[in-house]
Amino acid sequence: MFFKQPEKLILASGSPRRQQILQEAGISFSINTKDTPEDYPQHLPVEEIPSYLAWKKAKPFLTELSDETILTADTIVILAGEVIGKPENEKDACQMLKKLSGNCHTVITGVCIVNQNKKVIFSEKSKVYFRELSNEEIAHYVNTYKPLDKAGAYGVQDWIGMVAITRIEGSFYNIMGLPIHKVLKELEAFMSGE
Amino acid sequence: MFFKQPEKLILASGSPRRQQILQEAGISFSINTKDTPEDYPQHLPVEEIPSYLAWKKAKPFLTELSDETILTADTIVILAGEVIGKPENEKDACQMLKKLSGNCHTVITGVCIVNQNKKVIFSEKSKVYFRELSNEEIAHYVNTYKPLDKAGAYGVQDWIGMVAITRIEGSFYNIMGLPIHKVLKELEAFMSGE
Repeated sequence: MFFKQPEKLILASGSPRRQQILQEAGISFSINTKDTPEDYPQHLPVEEIPSYLAWKKAKPFLTELSDETILTADTIVILAGEVIGKPENEKDACQMLKKLSGNCHTVITGVCIVNQNKKVIFSEKSKVYFRELSNEEIAHYVNTYKPLDKAGAYGVQDWIGMVAITRIEGSFYNIMGLPIHKVLKELEAFMSGE
Repeated sequence: MFFKQPEKLILASGSPRRQQILQEAGISFSINTKDTPEDYPQHLPVEEIPSYLAWKKAKPFLTELSDETILTADTIVILAGEVIGKPENEKDACQMLKKLSGNCHTVITGVCIVNQNKKVIFSEKSKVYFRELSNEEIAHYVNTYKPLDKAGAYGVQDWIGMVAITRIEGSFYNIMGLPIHKVLKELEAFMSGE
C-alpha cells in the first residue's frame, strides 16, 4: 500500500472498533493484549490521561520485544472537566448518558507506538454534541447495545450516535477509538526514521 | 420505537448509503426510485441547490400518492463557491479529488418529506477537511472504489475518508448522504402535525 508500516505490528487492544478501523485502513497487524489497570495519578492534567494510559498499556510488552512494533490506545470522555470512563454496570451507563444528554463533550484518544528503539506518544481531541435524550431512549440503548466497554457508555457508530449526535468537530474515527489518519501519518514517520 | 414515523414511508433514492443509514436508525421504509435529471436553474444560490433537487426528485411521485410519505435527498459538494457534483468518469473523479486534496470543502444535503397533505424541505451543511492526497492514492481509490455515484467522487465512510480526512464539522451521516438526526426529528414533527 501507500503507507510504510512496521512489518510486525501488534495492536495491543481488545477493542473490536480499533481492530475494525485498522483493518479497513488497510494495515496488517496481529492482536496481543495484556490486562492493564486503567488508573492514573490524581494530579495528572485531564488532557494527558489518554496518552499516559496508552503508554501504560504498552509498557508490559517492552521486556519481550524483539522486532515487533506495539500500538496501544486509550479513549476518554470529558464533560465539564470531569473524566467519564467506562461504566461499571448498566445503571452507571444510564447515568453517564444522562450527563451527556443535551451537552457537548470532549473525546480524547491517546496513542502509543513503540518498538525496541523508540517510541512516539500522541493524542487527538474531538468534540461531540448530543441532543437531549429521553429516559426511554437511554434505557433502550443500554439494554440493547450493552455499552459497558465504551468510554462515556456510547459508541459514535451505534444507533444512539446516528439518532442523537447533532454535530462533531474533529475526526469521527478518533471518537470511535482510534484517530486513524494520525496513526497512519505517525506510523510512516516512525518507519522513515529507522 | 421512539420515533413516530409515517406508516408507509418510501425512500425515493437509489443510494445504498441512504438506505443503510435509514435502516440502521431503525426506520421502516420501502424503496421506489424514478429517474430525475439533476439539473437546476443557473441563477439558484448554491446553498439552495440540494433542497431544490430533493423537491424535484419528489415531484414525480405527487400525482400517484395515496397514503404514502415520500422521502428524497440530494447531496452536493461545494469547494470555494463551485459546485462539485458526481463525476462523469474515472478521469473526472481523479480531477475532483485533486481539487479536494489539501482543502476544506462544504457538503450540503437537502431533504424533502412529502405526503398528500403537506411537505417539508430542509438542508444540513457540514465541513470536511482533506489532507493532501498523492496521485497514487487518488488513482488507487478511484480504481478500487469506483466512486462515480458520489458527489465529490468520495465516500466519507470509505478508505479514503478514513486515511485522509483530518477533521469534520457537522454530522458524519450528512456527509455520507442523509442527516439522519434531523430526518428523524422532522419525520416526528411531520407526523405530530397530522
